[in-house]
Amino acid sequence: MPGECVDESCPVAQAVAVLDGKWTILIIRDLLGGVRRFSELRASLVGISPKTLTDRLRALEADGVVKRTIYAEIPPRVEYGLTATGRQLGPVIDALAAWGAGRTAPGGQPSADVL
Amino acid sequence: MPGECVDESCPVAQAVAVLDGKWTILIIRDLLGGVRRFSELRASLVGISPKTLTDRLRALEADGVVKRTIYAEIPPRVEYGLTATGRQLGPVIDALAAWGAGRTAPGGQPSADVL
Repeated sequence: MPGECVDESCPVAQAVAVLDGKWTILIIRDLLGGVRRFSELRASLVGISPKTLTDRLRALEADGVVKRTIYAEIPPRVEYGLTATGRQLGPVIDALAAWGAGRTAPGGQPSADVL
Repeated sequence: MPGECVDESCPVAQAVAVLDGKWTILIIRDLLGGVRRFSELRASLVGISPKTLTDRLRALEADGVVKRTIYAEIPPRVEYGLTATGRQLGPVIDALAAWGAGRTAPGGQPSADVL
């Protein structure tokens, strides 16, 4: 039961350590649709600064979630894609999408009855 | 396909707007195990400050994910629990746990082959 974790060794905490930050999840959401260029990601991620996008992509690369491919063209072309580990985040994004959709569906207002 | 969203109306973006922040996901993880007192949450969330925990709980309450119950005892007893909307985050936490466990499993090192 995920609720039983206590410390940093918990798999949920491990995942959150990599996925922390609003833009990180949205970058992965976009890359699940296939490789993207920096400019395409910026266009999709309304409000993100070039520096924040660069930092997030570098961190995801360091964590083995994203891979950057540079094509030796003039000018050089750079594409970002998900690694196999990155693609395994599909179920997380799908679960977030289902929950988010449930909240905004007509009558999807959050109900207050507790556990 | 989640990857096709562009703006804030995207359900993934809606979910992330509520769940943003490292501690938020971990609080929900703990409350999926049942109602908790403030002190119990603090003990489980190694490193969180009382102010951050208070802020996160208030934000989750405002978003209809968490409910606070105050028992008129001396001293008053306060418990936090998930609403029905909060409990619907179970699949998100399970997906995060599965991904996190996959990363730390022997040989679970992230692989670099791209899409």
